[in-house]
Amino acid sequence: MDRVAVIGASMTKFGQRDSWVMDLLAEAGTACLDDAGVAPDEVEHLYVSNMASGEFEGQTGVMNALAHDLDVLPAYSQRVDQTSSSGGAGIYAAWQSVASGASDMTLLVGGEKMTHRTTGEATDVIASITHPVEYKHGVTLPSFAGLTARHYLERYDAPRESLAKVAVKNHKNGLDNPHAQFQKEVDLKTVMESPIVADPLRLYDFCPITDGSAALMFCPESVAEQYTDDYAVVTGVAGATDTHVVHEREDPTVMGGVVESGKQAYEMADLGPEDVDVAELHDMFTILEFLQMEGLGFAEPGTAWERVEAGETEMDGELPINTSGGLKSKGHPLGASGVAQGYEIYAQLVGEAGDRQVDADVGLACNVGGFGNCVITTIMEAAA
Amino acid sequence: MDRVAVIGASMTKFGQRDSWVMDLLAEAGTACLDDAGVAPDEVEHLYVSNMASGEFEGQTGVMNALAHDLDVLPAYSQRVDQTSSSGGAGIYAAWQSVASGASDMTLLVGGEKMTHRTTGEATDVIASITHPVEYKHGVTLPSFAGLTARHYLERYDAPRESLAKVAVKNHKNGLDNPHAQFQKEVDLKTVMESPIVADPLRLYDFCPITDGSAALMFCPESVAEQYTDDYAVVTGVAGATDTHVVHEREDPTVMGGVVESGKQAYEMADLGPEDVDVAELHDMFTILEFLQMEGLGFAEPGTAWERVEAGETEMDGELPINTSGGLKSKGHPLGASGVAQGYEIYAQLVGEAGDRQVDADVGLACNVGGFGNCVITTIMEAAA
Repeated sequence: MDRVAVIGASMTKFGQRDSWVMDLLAEAGTACLDDAGVAPDEVEHLYVSNMASGEFEGQTGVMNALAHDLDVLPAYSQRVDQTSSSGGAGIYAAWQSVASGASDMTLLVGGEKMTHRTTGEATDVIASITHPVEYKHGVTLPSFAGLTARHYLERYDAPRESLAKVAVKNHKNGLDNPHAQFQKEVDLKTVMESPIVADPLRLYDFCPITDGSAALMFCPESVAEQYTDDYAVVTGVAGATDTHVVHEREDPTVMGGVVESGKQAYEMADLGPEDVDVAELHDMFTILEFLQMEGLGFAEPGTAWERVEAGETEMDGELPINTSGGLKSKGHPLGASGVAQGYEIYAQLVGEAGDRQVDADVGLACNVGGFGNCVITTIMEAAA
Repeated sequence: MDRVAVIGASMTKFGQRDSWVMDLLAEAGTACLDDAGVAPDEVEHLYVSNMASGEFEGQTGVMNALAHDLDVLPAYSQRVDQTSSSGGAGIYAAWQSVASGASDMTLLVGGEKMTHRTTGEATDVIASITHPVEYKHGVTLPSFAGLTARHYLERYDAPRESLAKVAVKNHKNGLDNPHAQFQKEVDLKTVMESPIVADPLRLYDFCPITDGSAALMFCPESVAEQYTDDYAVVTGVAGATDTHVVHEREDPTVMGGVVESGKQAYEMADLGPEDVDVAELHDMFTILEFLQMEGLGFAEPGTAWERVEAGETEMDGELPINTSGGLKSKGHPLGASGVAQGYEIYAQLVGEAGDRQVDADVGLACNVGGFGNCVITTIMEAAA
């Protein structure tokens, strides 16, 4: 069977945008068609990763509207929702559409428009994914993050600074990403002294509320070769679900969805963590970067902080993590984030990452929905 | 390659339910596991077809919550949204998951909880799929239906009664469906004298607002054979998108998405309209049954009404349509409807349709999103 290739990618500037969600999706979709050199009428399937256009903007049917705007009719169009991992789920859906033979040219566009709502309103929409038994106690995702961070730091005797260094690193990486929301360096002191949000986590341990969109073009490898030599291949992709009720998990520092989706993706790609050259992890909160490093085998349990402290995940380290700036600096427009992770890995593999280019043949992206409720891990390799 | 089989199905009672959406989804999901004889830990992928749990109930992440409630963890779970054709899109997603080799056991559950909202509120959520250029003129789906019905009746010199007879037939069929919202016959006079909603369409030309859920279990045919001899095979499934702005369509009586998805599904199944023994069409409005009959080749353009008048689509006719009672009598819980169509076709093919059983080896379901914006056509055959 043909492998599934990625032959083009795009992302809009992330940040506070005046455009509404449809314009953002159309901007990324159009740019991706251009980047792939694919004409609208060649697109057979269109997937739109989006969590909450209905709640944020009162607009549903965005896949249908986008198919119309991009002039890809009568292409099949469908919305993919997996809360904050909708983008990763879109990659999986797009992969399945090609691997099943249903489509020979699949466009995936992820996007969300959030900044027109207040922080309270946006947080409330996001909190609607929590289980009612937890929601009624006022538990939000940031509070889970705070509890988990405290547990991790105490259990593994890790310094508070090690978390802050994730933020510092990702902001530094974002400097070289023209699409990032914050192209601004922050120092350790700024992070450590920023306002407390969910103790011990502070403002700079969290990603911002963001508008933006990203897109990827998928097709069978035999079709890809007709378009370009510089493409990437999705060699591993898998997803897993963890308990919806977070307090039912055995160990708060182990995200079962990360472990399981990673295991399956490695198996499918016939690779292991040691083969990965570059990774995009879902750093919605700094602590999540530790949990994913450990869940994906990049560090033994309780030791991710040591690798971060040692600088091994910096741009010039052994395993650069979040070369894009991550959600922390790039921003986190829910449905777009997983697609934008794919954009970064693709750009690194085909050598289009500009000033933040690293040397990579194998890339991994991990997209986390809720507080590890749903997780998708994707492994891509350079065609070569 | 293995064909994709359906080895179990279920649906809850449709109507006004006290349960919230999660309970409805769990009820159908549990019943489907039982019907298929599949243990929760055998499920590899779970798809949830749902349009608007966030808008209707303030609850998102329903796929994750359901995976938890059904104890299918760590199965991959994802929500599929294609507005009112979310159920059909779920069938397509489930098919792709098995056909791509990603999953050997995929559970699809569709559901929606709507009746706790007022008709105005529910209509507003549904109207959020229309394009803003039309929405601001106060256009709703019922108004499109009225305009199209008037055009059809005048253009083809069809009697108003022919539309009413669709409602009469589907209510009659629903009598024998214990899951239907209305198990109640209505006569022609009642339909013709019911209050005008969107002239010339009256109250009984419309489906009700409904709560409910339905489920289907998919796996490769080689796996199916280990569970049962009585299974169905999805031999054709395809979807297509039409213009989002309805007034841009060339001919208001032709639904391009129906024509295109039907064409592709027939081609995939290597069958034609003449081979279909039983069909479930998306009769959200009576006029839609005519448009789909014509778009799918069951009648020449402008003649569907003649087949209906001649009784050819009745239970004992040449092509029974909506043996379940259709959306008209059974109800239309958005995300559930397409899955419930699949349930009916499956039940007819494996001989489990009870008092409404017809003789059928090939069945077709057509699920329509918006006003023909997105359409999925599915063809199933008895395993034989």
